[in-house]
Amino acid sequence: MSYSNTTTVQIPVVVSGATGKMGREIIKAIAKAPDMNLVGAIGRQHLGEDIGEVVGIGELEIPVTNNLEVVLAQAAQESQLPVMIDVTHPSIIYDNIRSAIAYGVRPVVGTTGLTEKQIADLALFADKASTGCIIAPNFSVGVILMQQAAIAAARYYQHVEIIELHHNQKADAPSGTAIKTAQMLSELGQAFNPASVQEQEHLAGARGAVCGENIRIHSLRLPGLVARQEIIFGSMGETLKIEHNASDRTCYMAGVLLCVRKVLALKSLVYGLEKVLA
Amino acid sequence: MSYSNTTTVQIPVVVSGATGKMGREIIKAIAKAPDMNLVGAIGRQHLGEDIGEVVGIGELEIPVTNNLEVVLAQAAQESQLPVMIDVTHPSIIYDNIRSAIAYGVRPVVGTTGLTEKQIADLALFADKASTGCIIAPNFSVGVILMQQAAIAAARYYQHVEIIELHHNQKADAPSGTAIKTAQMLSELGQAFNPASVQEQEHLAGARGAVCGENIRIHSLRLPGLVARQEIIFGSMGETLKIEHNASDRTCYMAGVLLCVRKVLALKSLVYGLEKVLA
Amino acid sequence: MSYSNTTTVQIPVVVSGATGKMGREIIKAIAKAPDMNLVGAIGRQHLGEDIGEVVGIGELEIPVTNNLEVVLAQAAQESQLPVMIDVTHPSIIYDNIRSAIAYGVRPVVGTTGLTEKQIADLALFADKASTGCIIAPNFSVGVILMQQAAIAAARYYQHVEIIELHHNQKADAPSGTAIKTAQMLSELGQAFNPASVQEQEHLAGARGAVCGENIRIHSLRLPGLVARQEIIFGSMGETLKIEHNASDRTCYMAGVLLCVRKVLALKSLVYGLEKVLA
Amino acid sequence: MSYSNTTTVQIPVVVSGATGKMGREIIKAIAKAPDMNLVGAIGRQHLGEDIGEVVGIGELEIPVTNNLEVVLAQAAQESQLPVMIDVTHPSIIYDNIRSAIAYGVRPVVGTTGLTEKQIADLALFADKASTGCIIAPNFSVGVILMQQAAIAAARYYQHVEIIELHHNQKADAPSGTAIKTAQMLSELGQAFNPASVQEQEHLAGARGAVCGENIRIHSLRLPGLVARQEIIFGSMGETLKIEHNASDRTCYMAGVLLCVRKVLALKSLVYGLEKVLA
Repeated sequence: MSYSNTTTVQIPVVVSGATGKMGREIIKAIAKAPDMNLVGAIGRQHLGEDIGEVVGIGELEIPVTNNLEVVLAQAAQESQLPVMIDVTHPSIIYDNIRSAIAYGVRPVVGTTGLTEKQIADLALFADKASTGCIIAPNFSVGVILMQQAAIAAARYYQHVEIIELHHNQKADAPSGTAIKTAQMLSELGQAFNPASVQEQEHLAGARGAVCGENIRIHSLRLPGLVARQEIIFGSMGETLKIEHNASDRTCYMAGVLLCVRKVLALKSLVYGLEKVLA
Repeated sequence: MSYSNTTTVQIPVVVSGATGKMGREIIKAIAKAPDMNLVGAIGRQHLGEDIGEVVGIGELEIPVTNNLEVVLAQAAQESQLPVMIDVTHPSIIYDNIRSAIAYGVRPVVGTTGLTEKQIADLALFADKASTGCIIAPNFSVGVILMQQAAIAAARYYQHVEIIELHHNQKADAPSGTAIKTAQMLSELGQAFNPASVQEQEHLAGARGAVCGENIRIHSLRLPGLVARQEIIFGSMGETLKIEHNASDRTCYMAGVLLCVRKVLALKSLVYGLEKVLA
Repeated sequence: MSYSNTTTVQIPVVVSGATGKMGREIIKAIAKAPDMNLVGAIGRQHLGEDIGEVVGIGELEIPVTNNLEVVLAQAAQESQLPVMIDVTHPSIIYDNIRSAIAYGVRPVVGTTGLTEKQIADLALFADKASTGCIIAPNFSVGVILMQQAAIAAARYYQHVEIIELHHNQKADAPSGTAIKTAQMLSELGQAFNPASVQEQEHLAGARGAVCGENIRIHSLRLPGLVARQEIIFGSMGETLKIEHNASDRTCYMAGVLLCVRKVLALKSLVYGLEKVLA
Repeated sequence: MSYSNTTTVQIPVVVSGATGKMGREIIKAIAKAPDMNLVGAIGRQHLGEDIGEVVGIGELEIPVTNNLEVVLAQAAQESQLPVMIDVTHPSIIYDNIRSAIAYGVRPVVGTTGLTEKQIADLALFADKASTGCIIAPNFSVGVILMQQAAIAAARYYQHVEIIELHHNQKADAPSGTAIKTAQMLSELGQAFNPASVQEQEHLAGARGAVCGENIRIHSLRLPGLVARQEIIFGSMGETLKIEHNASDRTCYMAGVLLCVRKVLALKSLVYGLEKVLA
């Protein structure tokens, strides 16, 4: 009798949006992870080319395709529960998630821009299929810490505003992280930013967007940066600012891999990385 | 024969908005200036009290009044050309300027929020009366330097946005300085901020106000700060930011006094401190 | 039978350093506090003048003196336990605290720059006299929040540095707040900032001062700002920054008054505002 | 008679430090430049591997070697004047430059940390060989603009300090750019930063390094960022800050390629990108 060597059980992973900036970093991260195996790469560029060659880490024997359904069907055949990481555009991601769940592939989703109704529908769908799904407006632990520090500070401040800056290829504004932050502050039960004077906006939009409990969000889009968010609190004579800056998409990889590992144990939809952090 | 002692000729100065934060600093600055003499103080608080006592520098024998006309009429009687410094609210300043010019009192105006049409009307009026008038969206030399540095940088960047933060008792948004900055950049003949993707604003106003050649301005209002403006340029792999921060209204005094001295030689309306800088 | 009117019991307060920038704000704050009564003002300028007139709030019937002993002796005669707030220079404050304790006057001290040995000596002295004393490197709640946010973040980051900027009349560097911050992080039991390369300092001092567990502090001194501290954490692809900015000394008043009220119940020396916060 | 097709004359380029972060970006940039041809790649990692494969752009038929002499000798055989771009470590770059010049290969050097004496020696050597050489402490146009804006502002400010932050694999401190900036400000003939009080450094190095006319430089080293420099001016009530942030090494490529094209026309050593900018 012979026994095969026990090898690490690998999670089969499909990456949708594999040829975008975020997707390429994810491909590299999965290739390095000993407990994951890339089984599919969906993208709109470099069709037919090997995704490993495309991202510069050598052949992975996975060609880029734009046919998500076929890849999901194949992944469903794997002996281990498969996961789909999706970092595409808000306009197609809703359907991608539904397709994945239909095939029993667990979605880990990083693109924001889904409406509250869409999230609620997906939650219902995942629940019915008893299939875990994680939607993270942001995969960075630093962002979670920034949000938690803001919640702690809010007790002492009546005034707060949010600025978020992203590269100019980001489609949605405000960012999902900024909206989430404003919602977290709004859930504290405080009223923020009472008006001192009668304000006048001479140019429409100058004062940004209002979110939650009267919290303003200001969104800038410029080349030369990846993602930055500043939460600024003010009171008499002082300001307190908490700022997270992602200079490189590698800062999201720890969070992405963590979600891939955690989603397998879930049977419903979870929104926010902080829900799966230790 | 007797000769009088030659004393420094003093410019008679009236301050409108004398009891506000900016006005109080101006009163102190004029009291210290050897070539200026305070002859009137218009304000809405501390009526009847001595303005020197109100601001904490000892009696100046000038009671606070809310009757501008009476003060202007008195100033017009002075043997030297008088100047009115006005730092009140945009809603009353148009009329104040017209009144001053009517009495031959030269206005030096620091409150912004005047529309282009109002400025054009005042220019015509000052011209007809051959009376100098200076409207400065900002009295700080640092702000002028920031704007000039931005003009020099704009040649090399296609993308730029402006953030301005002010204390929460500022009535108008965007600030006059930010609008002026956007206009100065727009006059360079470049097109700024070409769109890379189809942007979607999920919350109205998130992307700020558009000014001039597609330049976004974002206005924050918080206690704990006086005035800050950031001009951020972006291109591949880098950003260049020029930021001016006023922590104290004393930073405007050098510019205010300079304008008081310069307006006497003018016969028309001038817009912008940089026009009278060496 | 007659009953006296009950009036709020007022804490007799002496302010040492009353004519400095911080001291003047404190005088104004005490004058407004219904539960405090100013009984002495020690300073080096405006000797003999009424301190209320000096700071611009009208006569308080307390002349400025430079004789601390006399003022402490008088305060000791009050029917309520008196408090001395001291915001003078590190070089004289040690003796001031000992004198106050000797007279049974409770010190609330805001000037930093005391050495660890001096603090230990004062703790012993206060203990023997069963007299409360509070030494706060910083009176701002925002600073406490910044420090607590940093402690929470440190778990996730190996790399951190501190920048502090103060007005150019601050005598000591680094600031007490920065040193305290570095000590708080060092007490977490982590090793920070392991070296990646062999560093070379071509100009001595470029890499700042080392404090605690290998944490660098960088101190800037410039006019035009009051006090700012930035704690910057870095890891792969991202940075997290927590920044507190005091634009005005009024931000310290809430903390100062809180300490005056809390010190009466103490019988020993307490170091740090966070120890008396709710 | 037949005529060969005229093809763009290509500059033969050798890259020393090809496998480091900066070097990899340079390899990609040269591969895309129509007027350049990569003829050699010197590095310490991936020896023997094709440099194009190493950086992820496909085979370039140039193997990585650590033998600079051999590569320079080969480049000297080319029919066009060759250029060597060197972005290695300060400790070996002096010798590399001398070797290149000895072979008639024009150096374009980006690593700083050379002493003034070394730069003077190299200038003499290049001069004798009538061979152009460019040493650029910084290849970014944004940095040049920052320095020029600082020079314009310095006229109006007596107080200025510099903060520079780099990734924690940078060997030298302060950065060459910061030192250059301090020198440029010092050449204006002003005295900076007169002392207001007797300063005391309780921890050695807190106040940074002194450079030129009493200008302090503060150097931070953290993962999560590439390169940032802040020049902060201060005067009564205000600060003016000019900040350049490189999030990605692609921001240096325009400057690198410009230097490669410009060095061919030189016969001596030039220090600073601004010397070859239009």
